Amino acid sequence: MGRRLVLASGGVRAEERRAVYTQAIRDAIGDAGRVLFVPHALADHDGTVAKFAEKGLDAGYALDGIHRHDDPVRAVEEAEAIYVGGGNTFRLVAALHRMGVLDAIRRRVRDGMPYVGVSAGSNVACPKLSTTNDMPIVEPPSFETLGLVPFQINPHYFSGSTWRRDADGSYHEHFGETRDDRLREFHEENTTPVLGLYEGAVLVVEENDAGTTMTLLGGPARWLRPGEEPIDFAAGDRLESVIGALE
Amino acid sequence: MGRRLVLASGGVRAEERRAVYTQAIRDAIGDAGRVLFVPHALADHDGTVAKFAEKGLDAGYALDGIHRHDDPVRAVEEAEAIYVGGGNTFRLVAALHRMGVLDAIRRRVRDGMPYVGVSAGSNVACPKLSTTNDMPIVEPPSFETLGLVPFQINPHYFSGSTWRRDADGSYHEHFGETRDDRLREFHEENTTPVLGLYEGAVLVVEENDAGTTMTLLGGPARWLRPGEEPIDFAAGDRLESVIGALE
Repeated sequence: MGRRLVLASGGVRAEERRAVYTQAIRDAIGDAGRVLFVPHALADHDGTVAKFAEKGLDAGYALDGIHRHDDPVRAVEEAEAIYVGGGNTFRLVAALHRMGVLDAIRRRVRDGMPYVGVSAGSNVACPKLSTTNDMPIVEPPSFETLGLVPFQINPHYFSGSTWRRDADGSYHEHFGETRDDRLREFHEENTTPVLGLYEGAVLVVEENDAGTTMTLLGGPARWLRPGEEPIDFAAGDRLESVIGALE
Repeated sequence: MGRRLVLASGGVRAEERRAVYTQAIRDAIGDAGRVLFVPHALADHDGTVAKFAEKGLDAGYALDGIHRHDDPVRAVEEAEAIYVGGGNTFRLVAALHRMGVLDAIRRRVRDGMPYVGVSAGSNVACPKLSTTNDMPIVEPPSFETLGLVPFQINPHYFSGSTWRRDADGSYHEHFGETRDDRLREFHEENTTPVLGLYEGAVLVVEENDAGTTMTLLGGPARWLRPGEEPIDFAAGDRLESVIGALE
């Protein structure tokens, strides 16, 4: 049995999107009783665990906060599934390094333990944190992340220009870099492909003896590579023939 | 003679904003013949130097690209003024460390060499890169930056919600963190105050025997500290009585 990953963009407040997301979690995790939850992308760990349950993002599972364990590596070794929540990716990466759990998570996920990530939790499933949208509020010891998939994910992806809305309801274009500018700059410095996951989109990866399937649910996505035309995917599409095998 | 800094947010495409910015540069630099320019926040160094001149952002000075110098530390030692352009802050910080010029810039600026920064160039004038809006496309050896001022700057600052505009002209709220969310998260992890510079805003710092003046030009700014109410400034305001002395 190989990797079973649910990698979500976030933006799942709407009932319809949340239903797609939580069904994907249930399909991946099955009848596990307890799910080890990593709340470290946010500052308030107990509050984050409570909020995920309150908003129905627990998909009906009891979330067992890893911050409550004296030995986080052992908690990973004994987990039936792992779920990494959103917030600030730099803070999350610093915590994963501090707890020393990267290798244990990698090993368990390759051996079949289901992994669910949303937003920052999807960022850290990639080789490096480099396609996060977050502010570098803490300095992690390195940008190295879990590398559960061989490509980068950009959560909350969108194309086009950015505007702000003022209190009077008027819109004003914001002249900072657009998301596409930022990802093009990533590809000036890196060759790793990027999957831009629009809000509400969920990538489900299932690896077994017959091969690997990658299914997009809940929203669209865009596949970006340096110097090549982007490829657009719609909810329901299978992506493995474009993305290729897991390494 | 002490520090003479021009720290701009960016967003100076409009003629009126550009005039304020370039006048501030001329007031700081005076009659220096050559200005050492650091284009490393962008990938194309010669192209960036040319673009700054073409757009009138050179303020009438000949910009001498530091990438053209075999010995960048010596170029800093011999410069009459230094000007650091915008782009990606992570790429810029990696280049400053690679060229080994941080100490030389700090020393020269403390001794009175004028420093002009825009966007990423303002970010690196602060103690750490941590309040950049940029994507971490490259991993610098550390988040340490020049520390020419004892507070952080957030360029392209705005308050309120973020929207995207689709090709059909419709607006859709973007559910990623707002700028204020991001800076509040910075203050969950750090105590350093942050000056949010709205687009078009320029902070001019002048240090001399009589003390230090900090003058805001071109646009508004907001002073953010953990757990305290923000303080708003307007163009023309003097900020030193709020911000306090340079260390």
